[in-house]
Amino acid sequence: MVVVVRTDLDMGRGKIAAQVAHAAVGAVLSSLSDPALAAWLRDGQPKVVLKVPSAERLSQVAAAAEAAGLPVQVIHDAGRTQVEAGTATCCAIGPAPITAIDRVAGSLSLL
Amino acid sequence: MVVVVRTDLDMGRGKIAAQVAHAAVGAVLSSLSDPALAAWLRDGQPKVVLKVPSAERLSQVAAAAEAAGLPVQVIHDAGRTQVEAGTATCCAIGPAPITAIDRVAGSLSLL
Repeated sequence: MVVVVRTDLDMGRGKIAAQVAHAAVGAVLSSLSDPALAAWLRDGQPKVVLKVPSAERLSQVAAAAEAAGLPVQVIHDAGRTQVEAGTATCCAIGPAPITAIDRVAGSLSLL
Repeated sequence: MVVVVRTDLDMGRGKIAAQVAHAAVGAVLSSLSDPALAAWLRDGQPKVVLKVPSAERLSQVAAAAEAAGLPVQVIHDAGRTQVEAGTATCCAIGPAPITAIDRVAGSLSLL
């Protein structure tokens, strides 16, 4: 699984962590019957946190992942702190084989 | 749910986010049959990320939460990056009612 985070929102590290956790939990709950989830858990649930500089880039990556048939969870913040309600902050891609994820997110840098 | 993170390990923000997500996913998977999970999901799965300055304080908070009967997930890092293998990096407490969590973690500061 990768989680792609927008860096243009100037979120603090605690806020980022909560958003990434939200995405990861959403991805897992959406994949409970998916064999890819079991495989990912057996591997120690590897997660890589990547960054994009804008909402547009986040949308592009999410759309590319969906087009590739990968599970995608875009997180829209409730807006109680730091960012406006409804703002897309990050998205999880997976759980899925890393080779498939790399095809759509392999060029992104680590957060 | 709260996730309590050690600040003395000098983890980067991406590393912290991955550890917090690991704790949150672990907490959810351990609570699939717990009515507290359903209540927490209905509330929009609120997560608060808190900090402690040392391994000792992390252990104390985790022990206090366990003694209070709360679900606790301590995360030990696989050690591939940034910290030594087996290092306790953070712990999730919950999902559980916030009043119960506050009794053991209410004095901690936001990360």
